[in-house]
Amino acid sequence: MPFRSVIKYRVIFRVLSFLLIFESLFLSTGIFVAWYYNETLTPFIYSVAVTLGLGLISWYVFGRDTKKGIGKREGYLIVSLSWILMSLFGALPYLFSGAIPSFTDAFFETISGFTTTGASILSEIEILPKSILYWRAMTHWIGGMGIIVLTVAILPFLGIGGMQLLVAEMPGITPDRLHPRITATAKRLWGIYVIFTIAEVLLLWAGEMDFFDSVCHSFATMATGGFSTKNDSISGFSAYSQYIIIVFMALAGINFTLHYLALHRKFSKIWANQEFKAYITIIVVISVIIGIGLIIFMHEGAEKAFRDSLFTVVSILTTTGFVTANYYIWPGYLWMLVFALMFLGGSAGSTGGGIKIVRHLLLIKNSWLELKRAIHPNAIIPVKFNGKAVSQNIIFNVMAFFIIYVLIFASGTIALSVMGYDFETSIGATIASLGNIGPGIGGVGPVENYGFFTPVAKWLLSFLMLLGRLELFTILIVLSPAFWKQ
Amino acid sequence: MPFRSVIKYRVIFRVLSFLLIFESLFLSTGIFVAWYYNETLTPFIYSVAVTLGLGLISWYVFGRDTKKGIGKREGYLIVSLSWILMSLFGALPYLFSGAIPSFTDAFFETISGFTTTGASILSEIEILPKSILYWRAMTHWIGGMGIIVLTVAILPFLGIGGMQLLVAEMPGITPDRLHPRITATAKRLWGIYVIFTIAEVLLLWAGEMDFFDSVCHSFATMATGGFSTKNDSISGFSAYSQYIIIVFMALAGINFTLHYLALHRKFSKIWANQEFKAYITIIVVISVIIGIGLIIFMHEGAEKAFRDSLFTVVSILTTTGFVTANYYIWPGYLWMLVFALMFLGGSAGSTGGGIKIVRHLLLIKNSWLELKRAIHPNAIIPVKFNGKAVSQNIIFNVMAFFIIYVLIFASGTIALSVMGYDFETSIGATIASLGNIGPGIGGVGPVENYGFFTPVAKWLLSFLMLLGRLELFTILIVLSPAFWKQ
Repeated sequence: MPFRSVIKYRVIFRVLSFLLIFESLFLSTGIFVAWYYNETLTPFIYSVAVTLGLGLISWYVFGRDTKKGIGKREGYLIVSLSWILMSLFGALPYLFSGAIPSFTDAFFETISGFTTTGASILSEIEILPKSILYWRAMTHWIGGMGIIVLTVAILPFLGIGGMQLLVAEMPGITPDRLHPRITATAKRLWGIYVIFTIAEVLLLWAGEMDFFDSVCHSFATMATGGFSTKNDSISGFSAYSQYIIIVFMALAGINFTLHYLALHRKFSKIWANQEFKAYITIIVVISVIIGIGLIIFMHEGAEKAFRDSLFTVVSILTTTGFVTANYYIWPGYLWMLVFALMFLGGSAGSTGGGIKIVRHLLLIKNSWLELKRAIHPNAIIPVKFNGKAVSQNIIFNVMAFFIIYVLIFASGTIALSVMGYDFETSIGATIASLGNIGPGIGGVGPVENYGFFTPVAKWLLSFLMLLGRLELFTILIVLSPAFWKQ
Repeated sequence: MPFRSVIKYRVIFRVLSFLLIFESLFLSTGIFVAWYYNETLTPFIYSVAVTLGLGLISWYVFGRDTKKGIGKREGYLIVSLSWILMSLFGALPYLFSGAIPSFTDAFFETISGFTTTGASILSEIEILPKSILYWRAMTHWIGGMGIIVLTVAILPFLGIGGMQLLVAEMPGITPDRLHPRITATAKRLWGIYVIFTIAEVLLLWAGEMDFFDSVCHSFATMATGGFSTKNDSISGFSAYSQYIIIVFMALAGINFTLHYLALHRKFSKIWANQEFKAYITIIVVISVIIGIGLIIFMHEGAEKAFRDSLFTVVSILTTTGFVTANYYIWPGYLWMLVFALMFLGGSAGSTGGGIKIVRHLLLIKNSWLELKRAIHPNAIIPVKFNGKAVSQNIIFNVMAFFIIYVLIFASGTIALSVMGYDFETSIGATIASLGNIGPGIGGVGPVENYGFFTPVAKWLLSFLMLLGRLELFTILIVLSPAFWKQ
């Protein structure tokens, strides 16, 4: 679809107004939580008032535009602005309650929530009001909902980073106007997301967790977020709870269209999916290697070793960031394997972040074929994925994504190191933010937090979270001068 | 040129025989050095005997093949095998003299020489016989000669990693059969290489260096190698000598076809070269930043600070690896800038290694245009370099090169960490070997050496040096099963 010469701002503002109203509804649930736990209601009442008020005014002003078409250009702007706007207003409860008095910190915590990163500036989590902890988990859950529709419906439409590949998987989707696709796809996949969340809540509640913790951890799990209600994350919970969380993290890291296929009993199609197979293989192989390492070098019992290993591998690979063990004190090569997982990421079309496994598969296949192409320069040798030839354009797009990812990773690391942070902290914070993981290495290791960074560094890391979450291109395109020409 | 169904082994062996005879001539110069310094002659006499003998026998057996055509397939094999064969026989003086008794170590030191890496397993260099130090420097110089003809004549012919870009720069070259191009190009550029070497020898000799040190350091400079005759590399020499070496390292890191143009007074073409401009800009900007940092944080005098800074930046960027200052004890962000330079590399068509600046320029330009392409999906927007549109094929090739480079870097780092080396040592040794630099960070920092690695690690690092020096594809293609089919 060609760019129109004029950006339809009314449409953009209308969608953003709708998002604010939508957010205010979620914020209002915080009032009930505060009421139930006898906490002060004002932070959430104020937050709802501001968000709903502004949303309604804006909707009233821009809502009467009858032209409904949203083009690519509007799409980029809506996606970019929505995460920023939601984070600005989502920070209000932290500020109004005084839980996080600094605006920079409150925004960092909120965008970390909505981008499902789970990097926190808080060191003392358990002293916070329950309603605030609830909202913190809720930002994850809303962000996860946003990501599903974004990666499965919107990004393929915008042609970003090989996401078109996913379209073929989802029945009944045509690359047409944005609107009909959002509704059709979103309804199906949000249903799955909600069902999984409810299932996890019930299963966790059946263990030693109370209902509140079950809900908060389920929100954070299904969004592959990572915010916990406890200072020591998941370490203090029972083996039962940890296994439940492992299972649901793993489910959240799978392409949601595969869950949809599973619902329709098309299991052969799921097993034929190469990204899914690679995902399972990585989890099994790396967990076994690390598990054996923990038994040998850390003298842990077999069950505990493999549980910690599996939990860590699934948590980092899916970019959730929950922690049961401080992997940074493991022997070097064990934590370096965990560190390597940070560069892989979840499956495309999941709530997981990072580069994504499908991109790595395409790049490795293409690298291999590039050797073949050098040997047979006149032959046309396409990359095959799930049995179909992938167009050269998509491969080109995926290669560009990877290269830009590496360049941004390098730039972020250099920027942090120039600000005075050490090598491992700079590397760790950059990849943990850009990959929407949360815990990294060095000063942002699994038992640390992001509170010590300067405000400038926090804004940089917030920007990296947003970049990574929106698959780089969305933000970069809006920031490019070419976008604003004509 | 299409692959023939049968690899012409006779041609390959003939070329390799020629290379052995060629190497034995260089080895024989070691006899004179040993004689002049009253050292034992036997190591070099034995080495010459073995190398010349095998070369002549092989030449006699395979030399009578009258078919002269060398196809692509033969080209890949010749290039890959020549560096390995030269290193095997070049290790003989170390072994025969007992200077390096272990075969693994001797091979490591020799391939480090021929690939112009300059990573050494030796901790005590000054106790070695002069003839051995001479041969050590000579392996650099021969490797540098090989690289010039390889990157400017052979690799473009083989279509590797965007090297075709260089062909356009060199007058009178047509992508025809290999043979005529080698001779024509090699003669011109080797002339420049020899003239620069002689000039550096004379200028260094005019300072406090004796003739022997002047020759050895000039060999290592022009090849961007990095082997010194001193334990503390260039630190102990005067400011004058250090400035001379800075100038010649910088010259060695420039595309040699630009020197050829300079000889023909086509200066406007040189200034129009975007890689050259980027190269100069990087050197100036990073040197100034680090220089100011050294004045502020290390309380160095201005002249010393900027000399150390300029020396380090030029040495690492060109992948030479000479050292005047231990950059690893500088404040974090200063040595991290040096570390970042390790991923840039010299200019294409220079003796420098690494990813090369031209590739980075193409990738950054292409990433930028990829955003434009997303905005205008139907427009064809080519990358322009030096005013000309670059074909999509070359961009694709350069992207694949970068991605494979990153994957090999990651694999090498993981492999070393699994062998038990720490994070920074694993990263440092991998990039310093793959990038043909020499000094890295961690355990292979600027005042360390590679002696402590296990034999397995040394073979891995040797392989990385070879991979990096031959622009990845040459070796990978020969190792791919597709190469051997039919």
